Amino acid sequence: MDGTKVKAVLQAVREGYLSTEEALDRLKRLPYEELGFATLDSHRSIRQGFPEVIFCSGKTIEQVAEIAAHLLRQHSNLLATRATEETYRAIARIEASAEYNTLARTVVVRQEPRPATTGIVLVMSAGTADLSVAEEAAVTVDFLGSQVDRVYDVGVAGLHRLLHKWGELQRARVLVVVAGMDGVLPSVVGGLVSKPLVAVPTSVGYGASFGGLSALLTMLNSCAAGTAVVNIDNGFGAGVLAHRINLLGEG
Amino acid sequence: MDGTKVKAVLQAVREGYLSTEEALDRLKRLPYEELGFATLDSHRSIRQGFPEVIFCSGKTIEQVAEIAAHLLRQHSNLLATRATEETYRAIARIEASAEYNTLARTVVVRQEPRPATTGIVLVMSAGTADLSVAEEAAVTVDFLGSQVDRVYDVGVAGLHRLLHKWGELQRARVLVVVAGMDGVLPSVVGGLVSKPLVAVPTSVGYGASFGGLSALLTMLNSCAAGTAVVNIDNGFGAGVLAHRINLLGEG
Amino acid sequence: MDGTKVKAVLQAVREGYLSTEEALDRLKRLPYEELGFATLDSHRSIRQGFPEVIFCSGKTIEQVAEIAAHLLRQHSNLLATRATEETYRAIARIEASAEYNTLARTVVVRQEPRPATTGIVLVMSAGTADLSVAEEAAVTVDFLGSQVDRVYDVGVAGLHRLLHKWGELQRARVLVVVAGMDGVLPSVVGGLVSKPLVAVPTSVGYGASFGGLSALLTMLNSCAAGTAVVNIDNGFGAGVLAHRINLLGEG
Amino acid sequence: MDGTKVKAVLQAVREGYLSTEEALDRLKRLPYEELGFATLDSHRSIRQGFPEVIFCSGKTIEQVAEIAAHLLRQHSNLLATRATEETYRAIARIEASAEYNTLARTVVVRQEPRPATTGIVLVMSAGTADLSVAEEAAVTVDFLGSQVDRVYDVGVAGLHRLLHKWGELQRARVLVVVAGMDGVLPSVVGGLVSKPLVAVPTSVGYGASFGGLSALLTMLNSCAAGTAVVNIDNGFGAGVLAHRINLLGEG
Amino acid sequence: MDGTKVKAVLQAVREGYLSTEEALDRLKRLPYEELGFATLDSHRSIRQGFPEVIFCSGKTIEQVAEIAAHLLRQHSNLLATRATEETYRAIARIEASAEYNTLARTVVVRQEPRPATTGIVLVMSAGTADLSVAEEAAVTVDFLGSQVDRVYDVGVAGLHRLLHKWGELQRARVLVVVAGMDGVLPSVVGGLVSKPLVAVPTSVGYGASFGGLSALLTMLNSCAAGTAVVNIDNGFGAGVLAHRINLLGEG
Amino acid sequence: MDGTKVKAVLQAVREGYLSTEEALDRLKRLPYEELGFATLDSHRSIRQGFPEVIFCSGKTIEQVAEIAAHLLRQHSNLLATRATEETYRAIARIEASAEYNTLARTVVVRQEPRPATTGIVLVMSAGTADLSVAEEAAVTVDFLGSQVDRVYDVGVAGLHRLLHKWGELQRARVLVVVAGMDGVLPSVVGGLVSKPLVAVPTSVGYGASFGGLSALLTMLNSCAAGTAVVNIDNGFGAGVLAHRINLLGEG
Amino acid sequence: MDGTKVKAVLQAVREGYLSTEEALDRLKRLPYEELGFATLDSHRSIRQGFPEVIFCSGKTIEQVAEIAAHLLRQHSNLLATRATEETYRAIARIEASAEYNTLARTVVVRQEPRPATTGIVLVMSAGTADLSVAEEAAVTVDFLGSQVDRVYDVGVAGLHRLLHKWGELQRARVLVVVAGMDGVLPSVVGGLVSKPLVAVPTSVGYGASFGGLSALLTMLNSCAAGTAVVNIDNGFGAGVLAHRINLLGEG
Amino acid sequence: MDGTKVKAVLQAVREGYLSTEEALDRLKRLPYEELGFATLDSHRSIRQGFPEVIFCSGKTIEQVAEIAAHLLRQHSNLLATRATEETYRAIARIEASAEYNTLARTVVVRQEPRPATTGIVLVMSAGTADLSVAEEAAVTVDFLGSQVDRVYDVGVAGLHRLLHKWGELQRARVLVVVAGMDGVLPSVVGGLVSKPLVAVPTSVGYGASFGGLSALLTMLNSCAAGTAVVNIDNGFGAGVLAHRINLLGEG
Repeated sequence: MDGTKVKAVLQAVREGYLSTEEALDRLKRLPYEELGFATLDSHRSIRQGFPEVIFCSGKTIEQVAEIAAHLLRQHSNLLATRATEETYRAIARIEASAEYNTLARTVVVRQEPRPATTGIVLVMSAGTADLSVAEEAAVTVDFLGSQVDRVYDVGVAGLHRLLHKWGELQRARVLVVVAGMDGVLPSVVGGLVSKPLVAVPTSVGYGASFGGLSALLTMLNSCAAGTAVVNIDNGFGAGVLAHRINLLGEG
Repeated sequence: MDGTKVKAVLQAVREGYLSTEEALDRLKRLPYEELGFATLDSHRSIRQGFPEVIFCSGKTIEQVAEIAAHLLRQHSNLLATRATEETYRAIARIEASAEYNTLARTVVVRQEPRPATTGIVLVMSAGTADLSVAEEAAVTVDFLGSQVDRVYDVGVAGLHRLLHKWGELQRARVLVVVAGMDGVLPSVVGGLVSKPLVAVPTSVGYGASFGGLSALLTMLNSCAAGTAVVNIDNGFGAGVLAHRINLLGEG
Repeated sequence: MDGTKVKAVLQAVREGYLSTEEALDRLKRLPYEELGFATLDSHRSIRQGFPEVIFCSGKTIEQVAEIAAHLLRQHSNLLATRATEETYRAIARIEASAEYNTLARTVVVRQEPRPATTGIVLVMSAGTADLSVAEEAAVTVDFLGSQVDRVYDVGVAGLHRLLHKWGELQRARVLVVVAGMDGVLPSVVGGLVSKPLVAVPTSVGYGASFGGLSALLTMLNSCAAGTAVVNIDNGFGAGVLAHRINLLGEG
Repeated sequence: MDGTKVKAVLQAVREGYLSTEEALDRLKRLPYEELGFATLDSHRSIRQGFPEVIFCSGKTIEQVAEIAAHLLRQHSNLLATRATEETYRAIARIEASAEYNTLARTVVVRQEPRPATTGIVLVMSAGTADLSVAEEAAVTVDFLGSQVDRVYDVGVAGLHRLLHKWGELQRARVLVVVAGMDGVLPSVVGGLVSKPLVAVPTSVGYGASFGGLSALLTMLNSCAAGTAVVNIDNGFGAGVLAHRINLLGEG
Repeated sequence: MDGTKVKAVLQAVREGYLSTEEALDRLKRLPYEELGFATLDSHRSIRQGFPEVIFCSGKTIEQVAEIAAHLLRQHSNLLATRATEETYRAIARIEASAEYNTLARTVVVRQEPRPATTGIVLVMSAGTADLSVAEEAAVTVDFLGSQVDRVYDVGVAGLHRLLHKWGELQRARVLVVVAGMDGVLPSVVGGLVSKPLVAVPTSVGYGASFGGLSALLTMLNSCAAGTAVVNIDNGFGAGVLAHRINLLGEG
Repeated sequence: MDGTKVKAVLQAVREGYLSTEEALDRLKRLPYEELGFATLDSHRSIRQGFPEVIFCSGKTIEQVAEIAAHLLRQHSNLLATRATEETYRAIARIEASAEYNTLARTVVVRQEPRPATTGIVLVMSAGTADLSVAEEAAVTVDFLGSQVDRVYDVGVAGLHRLLHKWGELQRARVLVVVAGMDGVLPSVVGGLVSKPLVAVPTSVGYGASFGGLSALLTMLNSCAAGTAVVNIDNGFGAGVLAHRINLLGEG
Repeated sequence: MDGTKVKAVLQAVREGYLSTEEALDRLKRLPYEELGFATLDSHRSIRQGFPEVIFCSGKTIEQVAEIAAHLLRQHSNLLATRATEETYRAIARIEASAEYNTLARTVVVRQEPRPATTGIVLVMSAGTADLSVAEEAAVTVDFLGSQVDRVYDVGVAGLHRLLHKWGELQRARVLVVVAGMDGVLPSVVGGLVSKPLVAVPTSVGYGASFGGLSALLTMLNSCAAGTAVVNIDNGFGAGVLAHRINLLGEG
Repeated sequence: MDGTKVKAVLQAVREGYLSTEEALDRLKRLPYEELGFATLDSHRSIRQGFPEVIFCSGKTIEQVAEIAAHLLRQHSNLLATRATEETYRAIARIEASAEYNTLARTVVVRQEPRPATTGIVLVMSAGTADLSVAEEAAVTVDFLGSQVDRVYDVGVAGLHRLLHKWGELQRARVLVVVAGMDGVLPSVVGGLVSKPLVAVPTSVGYGASFGGLSALLTMLNSCAAGTAVVNIDNGFGAGVLAHRINLLGEG
């Protein structure tokens, strides 16, 4: 897009061949690609509201490394999700300050300072097997700039352990609740507090858990009104959503 | 089955043509239908452990009435499930003492006295829309001869209402927990007590509850070990199971 | 959108306050809604390539009538699909020339002349119960301006009836093949000819046909390469697609 | 719960029989139902954060009327969802100021003044057939006290209509996006703005839409990170969630 | 089961203490396990109608070898299905005449002569990828004692190749038709001949073939009346069924 | 097909312009529709092996009556399945000897004598609610000309009732076993006899029976090798298959 | 939780500043986490009714070993399920008396004596491939302290083998019935005895067994009333449930 | 097929024993396999409209090499899809000019010149992970002889990137749009242009994408009328369909 045609119209206006009315009419008739997209482009980083993220699954290590190198040259922060240790090492060869979270399978490079925020996003999970997804959510929230509290291993089978965390529940502004198998934790937590709650089903389970379908359906049908559900194992998406909600409270 | 061939063998034994060893050998070789089934027949009422029950769904009122008349002539008790009011009236014309439970959609005729039992089966339900299934379970338990406690409307969204029922939970020997939508109540109750618990999913709900599938999967995947699940809306089956378990505690 | 801001820029250009470069830069920074959409709007009828269609299912008769009246005032042609007889009568009160096709459940009003095209779209169906969907496709094709041949009741169980239609198969430029139950007709037809073929599964069937799912899967998995599949019962969509393909051959 | 045992402990403290340490120890050993639940009860209205709502589906008109009468006597506001006109009339006989929204199938009685809030929740829908769910969301948001903007009939098939609403998209603090069939609208909107977005699949559609499953899966798999999904047709739940998120921004 | 009680009854008859009527009555009342099972046992080989078969999948090689050794000592024929080459070698060490069919993954040992039968079972398959299942069916039919014809690679995409096999179709008494992907071959063959036809879906395919579900549904919904369907990839079951049907024609 | 081109070739042969070799070559090159189909047509009644049947579901009463009238004018026998009483009355107005089976929902007109066959097809069903499908199978078998035995109400819950029918099981040449809900009857019967067995799942049930899916899967996975499965509720298809198998034994 | 606030209230009571009524009122208003949870904690071992169990699947060997070491230091018994041989060796390094059951994939350490119970839990399975799940159930039952009988390899295809086990069926107080593929064994056993029966579907099978779904549905739809179903492959859960039921009979 | 019987008829015509009418009548009665198939055979290459293609998945390398060698001896072009590098090397040993496309996993040998066509097929894809399927489509289109444009990585999350490609959209005659996850790209593109559009769902995704099912359903339910859908990951089928449609525009 070089704007040649737009400039030709403007030139005609300048030289008096076209009235402003005529010019506006011509601009409207120009082929679509000549107009407007720059607007979209230049506002893009604001529009999307978060730095570039690389979803590593389904990409070769070479592809990931190439994208990472490109982004790091622009001095932006970087989050890579679903990253293997090999992927991490490839990124670390480009930028030595890259940090790997084994549990979350994330790589983070921070080149710009973290924004100062006050609200807390509480990430909860039911079982140790759900930790990977919970950590992906927590790392994402932290990377985007919100503060994170973690409350893990508070399954409903030990209800008292959950009730002991009453303080953390009160302190948080937004909740991310991760659970596999029967996926009941968000329903129980949603019965205790009235804050925005993001429920994340995980594929943890066996038999009729059907790769997370059981937990997903439980959460979608939760009797606790006001529960937001994201895709199975989508800790990243939950983190983005929780951060965006949290930002509203930053005033 | 007239036993002709068996009698022929016996006659031969009587008359000395066959030794008892030979006779036993012959009996074993007789065609299957000549032997043994009577045993099954005469032990049937013991074997099944509960009086005759008519599942009305998919039967015409005439068919139900005919079966009911046949059973009542034998002075047995009668339970008809999934009965419409019309079905009830047809049975009441045969036996005026028939009782209809509108909520449970059951007809009960009691001609033999109730056995005296001491254990309590507690039937719990999450929402008012689940009452029909819960009542079917409760009526079945009562009909078979166990005592019933009812604790309704204790959904997880109001966790305190459930915790207020701690006493009832402690008093019961067996639990029947009925829930639709997300079906989380059995998981929460199963996290509080270690008694045998029968979970009944209901078809109550909308959207991704898929006619009770969501609640069914939640219960099958319950993290509370030791949960028994029955078919969607199967209050009757849950009642039979709970009664059988309860009987074990009668000593 | 009144273009006020654009005009202000143009005026500044006209009056020499802004160079064309500066103006282009400003235009790119204007809020999105000020620019470009008119382009989309004015090209809309070309872009969509077919007159307005009303999908009646899920709309009240009043809503349909209101939309129809609006369109007819603009002298455009009108196609209403999934229309009941009542809906037809409501439209006929607005425009007496409206025609109802009982089988296809369509209402057609033609106010502009049909374009002259030469290619033939052949609509085939397997069973009499699939006729409704096949006719919806045929009416749509005719309404949009392509010629239609119909070959109905040529199920695979009577393979000879299909082979007898060799001539029609050869004559057509595009095929629409409609089938319910096992949905095998498109596979067989696709094994005979190499023309673009649009397969339409129908919800006709019972048992494990699961409302058309069986036929849909058969068609998606067809071993006859080059088969296009549309949604279950989507005769309209098949008609639009077949017409668009046919138009390419009009040269 | 009468607290008898707690009072006995307290009395013993008062009378010097128990040290505070011993008393604390005893209190911890008391049966669960003696303690703590009042806390839950008295904090309940705060905890849940919204007035009582009656979900009418699966309840008889008598049941709904009884609950409504009970709540209205307490001078609270009332929202009844999935209400038929008959249900409305039953409530209107109790409180004449009840208002019925035919499209949303809601009854609202407002006895307490609306809180003053500034943030706007934008409710968008793709097709006219989705209006019922969209309106349920909008009515819920309004009932709970947030301001609502409505942008209906902006399906992706007419992308320009959506782009024309750029202003409304910018103005809103939270988005509720309702869509049936292919359910793509939230993905497209989520590609344009980075605000919290609640996606609501509807059961509108036919064929392989499988009662909203298609739209639900589309939304769960949305490539636009940060999308919250609720149950099929769950306009009420979306409204509650959007209101809770919006409240955070009221600061 | 030692028959002690039966013998006691018989002894009483012999000694004149019991009439035959009384004895018959007593026999009927004996506990179930005392009677009748021998009948079942001694008739077992006739009842099942085919020699022992080992389904190797899910068994260790040691388990298979142990069962095979046991059977071969009894001089019976042996068929092992889903056998790896390792399994074959383990059996071959026990009985050197064992034959392995790589395609069908079967091991056959024939120690008793094949029965002489005249009817032909025709096994057809659509694609080369279905050959494994087709061969399992063919080997089973041959092993049980029926004659087999094979017609492979006659997919519907090349309808003429199928029609060229008219002679084989006429000659057969029973058909086994194997197909994956869209699974249409049985429908087409069933439209040409009126013989008993056993349709075998295979898990061959990709995408929406869902591991054979698509082919299974196609066959269950086949418009060709009189089609028998067996489980996905169940060549063995199809072979048993076809052989049993074929035997009826042996007169 | 008027054969003009074939006759031209033949004429040329007659007149000596073409050798027989050349003529054969020309015939092979003629367009497909000129040749061969008559062969298919004239062999059709033999090929399909059973008289015309009208599947009434999805057809209007007028359509059914029209087809029936056409067939009856040709003095053929007639079977109409899924027929309502209204449909029966419409056929009875055409041919007074038409017979309606309320349970099976079939109409039969017999104008040609039944063939004399000796083999017996045994139709079994588990519950009274399955009777409709079982009767459809039985009526179909009888209509086509095989003898039928009926053994109804022999569910597995009363195993003794099934074992009492040992004689009927032995007497039959082919079995049709109908069951809904858990669909276990065919597995149990298939464990007792080694005859060809056609299993028919029915849509009878509730909850997780999913309209017959549960019974269908049970039958497809039956451990009793040699079980043929047909579509849910497909009594007609089972009858056709059983008759065809039975015919083989007629010698 | 240090109870500071409670102690302050108690101190005030002690010192006469607060009446017991006032103190009770204050206690009720205290933040939730200050009260009551200890009750839950100290009653936990009673409440759950069984020693700690480690579900190894989804945990690293290090995680399992750490938990095991922690528990063993407390001299409790230990059951680890879904344990590989490597996991066993890791536990055996901590406690040499650990026992590994290869079939059940369980590790058991017994440091406290087994309770003396009299009732028998009978574990039955249909095929050799189901043994792993059956053994997991049996080991669990034994670990918890109930006596176990095992009856394996009694599939319905050989009904006589099952009937031979009449004695074992009579002797047991509770039944655990394990089956894959068609999952019919619980239905047949449930038709013979009226004891509490826990049905366990397994993922054993192929084709349309869909990883145990077929067996699960069969069991949920079982016509034998009073059947408890647990998740696919959930031998552990079945064992816990059977033990709890059995304990009731220990009275 | 040696045509003996046909020649006998012709001979009789030649010799005057049969009139042409009688001969035509006899020909019609000849067994099917004697006639007509040659017609099918000789027209085959025209009928199918594209050179031989080898679908490598499920075939051994030896099988692929054998088929390839056979085809290459006939000097035809060759396309092998789903080919591993090993498969490529096997083909390259036969014909050194074979070309491998790593991304598309295709092998192409071109022995005949490409036909000259003018229309452009535009292949678009949403994410880098969909490239493999998109390339398979593109290679297929090119191999068959149409021109290809590629527009990759234009997901809806960056709508501006798509709008920038307005020119490519206008230039193309047919579109192939490939997308995984939510599969919304075809809906958006179909809302912009009215050309024939082939939508290809891919199995790319995780969680509730269910191996491409989510994208498939989105596309089938697309509100953009006139969308053709093919099987999941079926780039080849999409390429064939697009090429056939494109050919129509070649005049």
